[in-house]
Amino acid sequence: MSKPKGFEKPSGVRDYLPYAVEKLRAIERSVLDCMAGWGYRQIMTPTMEYYETVGVASSTSDHKLFKLLNNRGTSMVLRSDMTTPIARVVSSLLREEPLPLRLSYHANVFRAIEEEAGREAEFFQTGVELVGDDSPEADAEVVALAVASLQAAGVTSFKIALGHVGFLNGLLEDAVPGREDVREALKEGLLHRDYVGYRETLAQLSLAAEQRDELEGILRLRGGKEICSQARELSQNPLAQASVEHLSQVWDALEDYGVAQHVMIDLTMIGDFSYYTGMTFEGYAAELGFPVCSGGRYDKLLQQFGRPAPATGFSLKTNRILDGVNGIQVEPALPILLQYDVAHRKEAFAEAKRLRSEGRSVVMKHSDGPDDLICDTAGKGKRKGPLGPAYGEIVSFVEGD
Amino acid sequence: MSKPKGFEKPSGVRDYLPYAVEKLRAIERSVLDCMAGWGYRQIMTPTMEYYETVGVASSTSDHKLFKLLNNRGTSMVLRSDMTTPIARVVSSLLREEPLPLRLSYHANVFRAIEEEAGREAEFFQTGVELVGDDSPEADAEVVALAVASLQAAGVTSFKIALGHVGFLNGLLEDAVPGREDVREALKEGLLHRDYVGYRETLAQLSLAAEQRDELEGILRLRGGKEICSQARELSQNPLAQASVEHLSQVWDALEDYGVAQHVMIDLTMIGDFSYYTGMTFEGYAAELGFPVCSGGRYDKLLQQFGRPAPATGFSLKTNRILDGVNGIQVEPALPILLQYDVAHRKEAFAEAKRLRSEGRSVVMKHSDGPDDLICDTAGKGKRKGPLGPAYGEIVSFVEGD
Repeated sequence: MSKPKGFEKPSGVRDYLPYAVEKLRAIERSVLDCMAGWGYRQIMTPTMEYYETVGVASSTSDHKLFKLLNNRGTSMVLRSDMTTPIARVVSSLLREEPLPLRLSYHANVFRAIEEEAGREAEFFQTGVELVGDDSPEADAEVVALAVASLQAAGVTSFKIALGHVGFLNGLLEDAVPGREDVREALKEGLLHRDYVGYRETLAQLSLAAEQRDELEGILRLRGGKEICSQARELSQNPLAQASVEHLSQVWDALEDYGVAQHVMIDLTMIGDFSYYTGMTFEGYAAELGFPVCSGGRYDKLLQQFGRPAPATGFSLKTNRILDGVNGIQVEPALPILLQYDVAHRKEAFAEAKRLRSEGRSVVMKHSDGPDDLICDTAGKGKRKGPLGPAYGEIVSFVEGD
Repeated sequence: MSKPKGFEKPSGVRDYLPYAVEKLRAIERSVLDCMAGWGYRQIMTPTMEYYETVGVASSTSDHKLFKLLNNRGTSMVLRSDMTTPIARVVSSLLREEPLPLRLSYHANVFRAIEEEAGREAEFFQTGVELVGDDSPEADAEVVALAVASLQAAGVTSFKIALGHVGFLNGLLEDAVPGREDVREALKEGLLHRDYVGYRETLAQLSLAAEQRDELEGILRLRGGKEICSQARELSQNPLAQASVEHLSQVWDALEDYGVAQHVMIDLTMIGDFSYYTGMTFEGYAAELGFPVCSGGRYDKLLQQFGRPAPATGFSLKTNRILDGVNGIQVEPALPILLQYDVAHRKEAFAEAKRLRSEGRSVVMKHSDGPDDLICDTAGKGKRKGPLGPAYGEIVSFVEGD
């Protein structure tokens, strides 16, 4: 282990210079405002949570949790998502609050990572939770809000893939009864979208032709609403049938929201969180190969905190939008440089105050004399550092002016 | 050690319910906008830093740092302030950026605490750093900006106490030469504003009458600009004299800024950060017994990261303002409840979209029939949970309406 040098920051985490902060802040504000428009109110929770409660209930694998000890020797984690802390708050501070509850957040979350993988150990998520409503309408609301939030974040071209963990679980239960190991292997292939691996697992099984067709058939279940009828024919399992019915109702509501053109049904999709119990979805931007948002229904999480209630929600992967999508353009106005000598200082400060009250940004510079002036046109705004030009305009309050 | 229950959060950290978040966000936005008006651009750094660099360079006592290990077994800390990480960034990513640099931040910082003390282990600071300018003007700028920032945060009645570590160091050097232990004991008394303890330490020393008068005299050095002349007479030490001269120039500039009425000189004050090298200041709100902001000059910190440069800055103790000061009043408009049945759903969604585009907040509710409606006046907005009333208005798109 080498000793870090003074200028080093830990790997997997990042500094945001002003331009990036301004863009991130613009996304944050626009998305939270959008969520507020849908009646979602913002909540904040601590960076540290107990390992035994929130850490264990989160869907993050144990080895990806950042752990530390507090003064009493109790194991703590840096939060790895916001859904689990919000479930804790809904079950404690908000215990008396009638359901349904609509809550939003913008927060940094943490995942211990293989440093080689180049993934981020700290990143932002902006999302909502709708707690206490198990209807298809509630699921449609969060999907429609995800569409509106991506648009608010400046993502113009994207597709939401909609699935349901119940359909897959029901179908697999019937097709490979009593073989949990095989079901897990098949799901693993779907989770990583490894359809070749999925077919290989299938090939190794001794299955009746009908079962094989059913399991092969899953891979074709991607498209528009017609997928719902195909899925209904593929499996007669009651859970699978109920799941497709639910999804079909979500789709109808999304049509009424006028956002169905952004949505496709993908019954091969498995949400990446173990706590999902129903509908799941992922949003893909045209420019990017990985999801920019993910969400789903989690009806069993809140009971772990003592207040059983259905819930559904999503989060934007805000850093991916910041880095990967052109999105919101931020062009902060360059400040005015206001230089002055002592004799004109009071006057200069008053002028700065006036300009600031008009919303202008003003940088003050004391001048020791004519040689200490940043002068007129040529030099103006020609600063070359990573922050770009320094000033947009120069005003001088000095002797002789 | 008892196992935490499901609803528990760790002690010393907190959940912010929507009303508190809305107020905190309003303070954050208003203060950052104010700082932007003075040409300060926002920066963000990681929550985790290397212990060996930023952890050690920070002025936080070692036992108050939250420590954890990364995957490689390297010691990390949760940042305990923003000044030290910003010094790292100015010396690395911004190494090529010409000075002076004006940077602002709003960030959560962490201090491991005695749980009994009831202090916060995670809290927000909102502040600025002005790097690369050692003039009294630079110090006056950050003090004047602290005044403007407190006002932007809604703190109406407050006083900034202005001191200088050089004055005390110079005076003590002459008055108790070669007695580092005694100087530390005296400073300790001043740091905790324990003037009785300070006098007791003095009484135990065998001092000449002149020295005793000098050391006693420090305690009277609190007031307006007249304190500068009194201080000049109290100690002839060159460092003390130069420090008072600097402070006097800062005062003059503050008069030109028109903020001197918010400022007093307090040469008994010792900044609570070990890295301060010059002027220090603390802001006290009328309602509160502890500082709501603190700042000062730190000319030796940046060289620890390889880019020697003078610097000055301050931070608001944002949580104390949030909790202790009436300040900014936030009255979020209650949302409209828009209830609909399936027959009118499309119409209802279109109306919600229209209302949202006008900046209104709209909560949707599906109704299964006449018995499932939240009706007219009496029931409306009568929700009793901690979040307050749910709706400000009810609009129905249902059969028969």
